[in-house]
Amino acid sequence: MKFVKTPVKGMCDMLPSDMRLREHILSLIKSTYASYGFMEIETPVMEHIENLTSKQGGDNEKLIFKVMKRGAELRRAIDAGKEEFADNGLRYDLTVPLARYYANNKEKLPVPFKALQIGNVWRADNPQKGRFRQFMQCDIDILGDDTNLAEIELVSATSDMLSRIFAEIGITDFTIHINDRQILKGAALKAGFAEEDIPAVLISLDKFDKIGLDGIRKDLIENGFAEEAVDNYLSIYADLGQDMDCRAFCAQIGEDYLPDKVVQGLEEIMAGARAMISEHVKLVFDPTLVRGMGYYTGTIFEAGIDGYSFSIAGGGRYDKMIGRFCGQDVSACGFSIGFERIITILKDHLENGTPVAENSVAILIDKNAPMDKKLETFARARQLREAGGHVTILPMRKNMKQQIAKLEEEGYHSFEKVYKD
Amino acid sequence: MKFVKTPVKGMCDMLPSDMRLREHILSLIKSTYASYGFMEIETPVMEHIENLTSKQGGDNEKLIFKVMKRGAELRRAIDAGKEEFADNGLRYDLTVPLARYYANNKEKLPVPFKALQIGNVWRADNPQKGRFRQFMQCDIDILGDDTNLAEIELVSATSDMLSRIFAEIGITDFTIHINDRQILKGAALKAGFAEEDIPAVLISLDKFDKIGLDGIRKDLIENGFAEEAVDNYLSIYADLGQDMDCRAFCAQIGEDYLPDKVVQGLEEIMAGARAMISEHVKLVFDPTLVRGMGYYTGTIFEAGIDGYSFSIAGGGRYDKMIGRFCGQDVSACGFSIGFERIITILKDHLENGTPVAENSVAILIDKNAPMDKKLETFARARQLREAGGHVTILPMRKNMKQQIAKLEEEGYHSFEKVYKD
Repeated sequence: MKFVKTPVKGMCDMLPSDMRLREHILSLIKSTYASYGFMEIETPVMEHIENLTSKQGGDNEKLIFKVMKRGAELRRAIDAGKEEFADNGLRYDLTVPLARYYANNKEKLPVPFKALQIGNVWRADNPQKGRFRQFMQCDIDILGDDTNLAEIELVSATSDMLSRIFAEIGITDFTIHINDRQILKGAALKAGFAEEDIPAVLISLDKFDKIGLDGIRKDLIENGFAEEAVDNYLSIYADLGQDMDCRAFCAQIGEDYLPDKVVQGLEEIMAGARAMISEHVKLVFDPTLVRGMGYYTGTIFEAGIDGYSFSIAGGGRYDKMIGRFCGQDVSACGFSIGFERIITILKDHLENGTPVAENSVAILIDKNAPMDKKLETFARARQLREAGGHVTILPMRKNMKQQIAKLEEEGYHSFEKVYKD
Repeated sequence: MKFVKTPVKGMCDMLPSDMRLREHILSLIKSTYASYGFMEIETPVMEHIENLTSKQGGDNEKLIFKVMKRGAELRRAIDAGKEEFADNGLRYDLTVPLARYYANNKEKLPVPFKALQIGNVWRADNPQKGRFRQFMQCDIDILGDDTNLAEIELVSATSDMLSRIFAEIGITDFTIHINDRQILKGAALKAGFAEEDIPAVLISLDKFDKIGLDGIRKDLIENGFAEEAVDNYLSIYADLGQDMDCRAFCAQIGEDYLPDKVVQGLEEIMAGARAMISEHVKLVFDPTLVRGMGYYTGTIFEAGIDGYSFSIAGGGRYDKMIGRFCGQDVSACGFSIGFERIITILKDHLENGTPVAENSVAILIDKNAPMDKKLETFARARQLREAGGHVTILPMRKNMKQQIAKLEEEGYHSFEKVYKD
């Protein structure tokens, strides 16, 4: 019999110590988001192949794990020779399923709807360090709120949650970057770029952290844009500093290209969130923040920690996407955390992993111990457990010293031994 | 664009109230099993197709959702015309993945290893009321313990967990049935059946609850078994009563067909578990308990509630299966609960569902409220949350009375309103 003992390529077996850390972090995530009124929901991991290939998923649609038709339907597909063998696929994100879920259950859901989704997604990507083919995503979304209370709640809740998680490893300082797609658009138009060139211009701007302003200039010129527009554009971004003032930056663009209510809205979001989050968290206006996905329509945000080049959370407003998907306009705003990245950072810092509970007792019983002694022990174990203790009852091994050493490694520090006599 | 708003056939969207109940029950399950020293682990939902079709899964192997090969590999498969289009499949249970996991990670795991697995499994079964194509399984297993401490811990932990769950709906009494495959075998051999006929004989005995002894007699005769053996067999099972004594029953079989250590072992398991579980739980020796799966080698158990025809948990010892799977003998014993069935029973009894937390406050803000009033409100929300409260901040809707009525349905009872002036 052929038997493969490693997991499927790019997927992980979770050891007990992995799970203790993950479960601990999940409980912090759930309790923090619950305290902001987010409600957990779940969708099946399988989605109709039509929904997954509706062009809303961008490049992720190339990475779908497809689930084969079965029985007579598969037979028909093979005989027809058309190679449409799949009727379902595994979800590659939690946003497409959320749109379907909202369309299916809208009448039963509150308005606005504050949703928390935690679940695995699958992408047939090339596995690399820290990039898996099955990984957990954790999204909060507010559907049906077109006011900026949505942004304020999302940013504050995520900031709070990150504060609680990273406090465990002594990290209190991180930064949440915030910008608005309309500011990005306004700056490009003001500089003289055409509307249809904006996506290409933003792809260059997005590289700011890596290549700087000079690099962006080179990039834009190489892409054939007029030197005048490029120079105008870079002059807007010339004075980037640590504490960039949103209003001062936007004044360079002017009301013709950027409605004042966008600027005012962003100021309100930043002031509102600041009133709710830890003073250790930097909340900065970052006019170079772009965020890759095309579906954002307004505010965008991203969280990062000093010393790590990757972001640990990102999101924004995407008022059109759910509507395109389910045929009815629904304003939407979301923040998604990089669960696996956060776990990676925590693992870097936690030397001994997450231990088992402190009040843990291991009872080792000689298999020839008399029954009455065993029964006494069981009764005592019951009492300890009822009092909230963690008790494991194990057969005493020949090499008890080694057995105890291993249990100590697992986090057991209290031992009882029940001998033969 | 084609868009399907219902979930994939046989799978469920979980509404917020569903998730509150499920999460609450999961937390009871996890905390109870943790108090017995079980360690949570996780495997990827996808397994190699070779492992899933290794003949260890019985009929479940016919119900696999297969995941298609991708790219060049799929192309080669199609061109070869052999219809081997799948390289992976979704797991149909948690036992096959556990065997693979154990083979893969044995060196890093304690001996014995007490594992808790909670996760979805998928079967392309015909969906019916209470039977889904994606459903949650929850298994505890002890690997590497050949003493009956394993059975005592498994039965006690599961009993405790069921007590805690059902106490919430006022059900304190349920029954755990226990038997041993060797007793089933001994009784059949003693009656005069041949060893190779035992599986067929047990299929008849398994129907006892539905067809009674007369029905079993008819069944066996129709299957062509000798009348003498059938009569002998039924005489062993003639005196089935509520409090069947294990030793008295087994005395009818005798040591030639049933080693005394099996009887003694079962008595110890029952006495040991009784020392740890609630007095409300009936733990009964049930010589008609069979359990379908062929892989059990010793003790078997099943839990049921009065008034429900289906069992809510089942398990037993399966010392050979992991070995057959990973090529090395590993003693193993497990107990699996029917999570979805338990949820169904709880839903039958819970009129109002699981409410949101008691200390929940909804703050409704008029979108034209002045910024300073909003900031004061945010600061107060922060304080409430830091004190452990659940606070949701929402835009005030035009029909506030209706908005509040809906929030009350969700479980909010404390409201703050922030007006325009």
